[in-house]
Amino acid sequence: MKPILAEVITIGDEILFGQITDTNTQWIGAELTKIGIRTVRKSSVGDTREAILAVLDEATQRADLVILTGGLGPTKDDVTKVTLCEYFNTTLERNPEALAFVTKFFESRGRQITEINARQADLPLNCTYVANDWGTAPGMWFNENGTVYVSLPGVPFEMKNLMQYRIIPMLQKHFETPVIVHKMIRTVGIGESFLAETIADWENNLPAHIKLAYLPHFGQVRLRLTGTGTDSIHLKEEIDAQVQAVLPLIQPYVFGYDDDELETVVAGLLAEKNWMLATAESCTGGFVASQITKYSGSSSYFVGGVVSYSNTVKVSQLGVKPETLAQFGAVSEQTVREMAEGVRKVLGANVGIATSGIAGPNGGTPEKPVGTIWIACSTEKQTVARLLKLGPFREQNIQQTSVYVFNLLRQTLLDEL
Amino acid sequence: MKPILAEVITIGDEILFGQITDTNTQWIGAELTKIGIRTVRKSSVGDTREAILAVLDEATQRADLVILTGGLGPTKDDVTKVTLCEYFNTTLERNPEALAFVTKFFESRGRQITEINARQADLPLNCTYVANDWGTAPGMWFNENGTVYVSLPGVPFEMKNLMQYRIIPMLQKHFETPVIVHKMIRTVGIGESFLAETIADWENNLPAHIKLAYLPHFGQVRLRLTGTGTDSIHLKEEIDAQVQAVLPLIQPYVFGYDDDELETVVAGLLAEKNWMLATAESCTGGFVASQITKYSGSSSYFVGGVVSYSNTVKVSQLGVKPETLAQFGAVSEQTVREMAEGVRKVLGANVGIATSGIAGPNGGTPEKPVGTIWIACSTEKQTVARLLKLGPFREQNIQQTSVYVFNLLRQTLLDEL
Repeated sequence: MKPILAEVITIGDEILFGQITDTNTQWIGAELTKIGIRTVRKSSVGDTREAILAVLDEATQRADLVILTGGLGPTKDDVTKVTLCEYFNTTLERNPEALAFVTKFFESRGRQITEINARQADLPLNCTYVANDWGTAPGMWFNENGTVYVSLPGVPFEMKNLMQYRIIPMLQKHFETPVIVHKMIRTVGIGESFLAETIADWENNLPAHIKLAYLPHFGQVRLRLTGTGTDSIHLKEEIDAQVQAVLPLIQPYVFGYDDDELETVVAGLLAEKNWMLATAESCTGGFVASQITKYSGSSSYFVGGVVSYSNTVKVSQLGVKPETLAQFGAVSEQTVREMAEGVRKVLGANVGIATSGIAGPNGGTPEKPVGTIWIACSTEKQTVARLLKLGPFREQNIQQTSVYVFNLLRQTLLDEL
Repeated sequence: MKPILAEVITIGDEILFGQITDTNTQWIGAELTKIGIRTVRKSSVGDTREAILAVLDEATQRADLVILTGGLGPTKDDVTKVTLCEYFNTTLERNPEALAFVTKFFESRGRQITEINARQADLPLNCTYVANDWGTAPGMWFNENGTVYVSLPGVPFEMKNLMQYRIIPMLQKHFETPVIVHKMIRTVGIGESFLAETIADWENNLPAHIKLAYLPHFGQVRLRLTGTGTDSIHLKEEIDAQVQAVLPLIQPYVFGYDDDELETVVAGLLAEKNWMLATAESCTGGFVASQITKYSGSSSYFVGGVVSYSNTVKVSQLGVKPETLAQFGAVSEQTVREMAEGVRKVLGANVGIATSGIAGPNGGTPEKPVGTIWIACSTEKQTVARLLKLGPFREQNIQQTSVYVFNLLRQTLLDEL
């Protein structure tokens, strides 16, 4: 079967000039992969007629499916619709169904529709209108000369819902998709080079239709196996067998598979023990707690946390001894242990984790340079602390510390299971 | 003067398949903009010879500068260097300077260099070696037939440092760049459509060489003015005059300019009053604190916070009255007021902010649907609370709540200045 090839295009000077983060194309790439459509190119172009026409021309030559996002807002810097009309040699017309929808959208929020809002219902005549229940800019579906074009608003949550509930089902109906099977092995605590050396023999013996990629990210390395074939059950079995073959070589570093995140794996272990977690954060400043609470349902295993940015809060809220701070300093094994024990006891949790360090870029000393970070995990049975020696970069230090403290928590929970 | 046009290319199936977030191209676009180089296209392609050759061919036709990132790691899924050799009709050779560097990098970390590591010193013969002090994959600079090509590793902090300290100075030396002046007006609390209606007359009277764009993002809308010309002082004056002209129309919503973030503006106001801030978070779960502490130096105005995810923590750590929780519930004006007042007093801060709501997607009731969120700000003089009615999406609700609580804090601080 010929694979379905897709190109994803984002429109907007703000992306080229680096003024907004484009999270849309990543998400679209992942969703298309799941249904066996292969993204072969992503492009961002400015919001000019010429740039949009050029990228449409190029994408049309390569792809069966072209997805455009952005350039559909109500303001005048949006030229996508007009340019699509030019490209398809058609005109804009106010779509009654779309107009009714936009009108209702504003009315339900107690607002009058303005002419600028109403213009969102102007659509190219050759498109299929795709209702957007999550905003005001409709989706559009075009089928011209054997290529499908989909145009979506750039606002991520509108785009995502339109894709998930409207466009993906339309794509699955329209295309006959090949079989692609992905399997991701997620590791933590081993570097890319050393992982590669460890599994070199296994990797060299992989069959040609199964590809391996290394995806390093903040103390984690993901191994992605991608198989292509025609029989999904057989392909899945083949890939599972390869995973079983490599696993004994890297077992201690493997924390999960596929969509598993360290935080969700830890959540599962907490649930298994029916345990509640509490966090005490100094250098990570709330980031660790936010990585837990970004998941719905986290209140069933997370009691809360303290961001003890100042020493007085470490003493008053966590019960860290003033002598400990005076003798060893805030960034020390002794302090981080007392923080983890303290938050566990004070918040009435079963397990406490803590971070204290110099995130940088300032605040380092010769004895404790930037990147010196202590982490700890405390249960009723034991309190374990680890020293991290990270780099000079604040954001990276915060994120890596979060990864390492969750891994320490994971190891502790496994140890006590 | 002819503008210098750039294309930025990222290499890696992991980007196309949506398995990692590409933050590199945004950052590169912003840095190029600052030095007057205009990014006209961003592309992501897979790590195959064919895809890389095709995108190089296309970019060469349009751009004066082509920046590639990714595909330089030590493992075998990286084909960039070999393909660059083919494209430039040259060969790889082990570069002694690069080899010495990689060897030293590993030795300083107490590790032996492996053959896989050493291969990172193999470079195309026609490139200028650009030392990477932040990792092991070197940068490469090519100048062929009037186009400059720069190849950088994909690891963000390595790429950023290489760009900032090595490549940007080389670009400024190599190219004569035109004058581009950007000015960003940052607003919060007004929607894109309504902002557009408010400033329509002003916008219609902008001269042709000054462009306006609306960049909405989570409760904020940024207005970006971009002027192109030859005289930077005159252009800057022109744009400043336009800003002064539009300001009276939108003053209450404007919190800053250019790189200002709501959090840094608030930090400035806190510093002005020499005040310390404390946070009490329920539904935002540490995200608000992490938005403060991601900035270096935040310990001078942030004392700490409590993530009171459970009611017991609200009572024990923040002094919320059990009667209040019993009578009005955790998501209520009364509770959020007591949280803000409580955290201010308990942590010994001058001002406390608090959030409590239903972030979703679960946990809503007919009276308090998902997206019902209370925020509060408390000083010795006053406690102000606001009800937010947001949508069904957890991540968006957390981020928007953070924006709105910082805006409430900003308004309170301005009020008390």
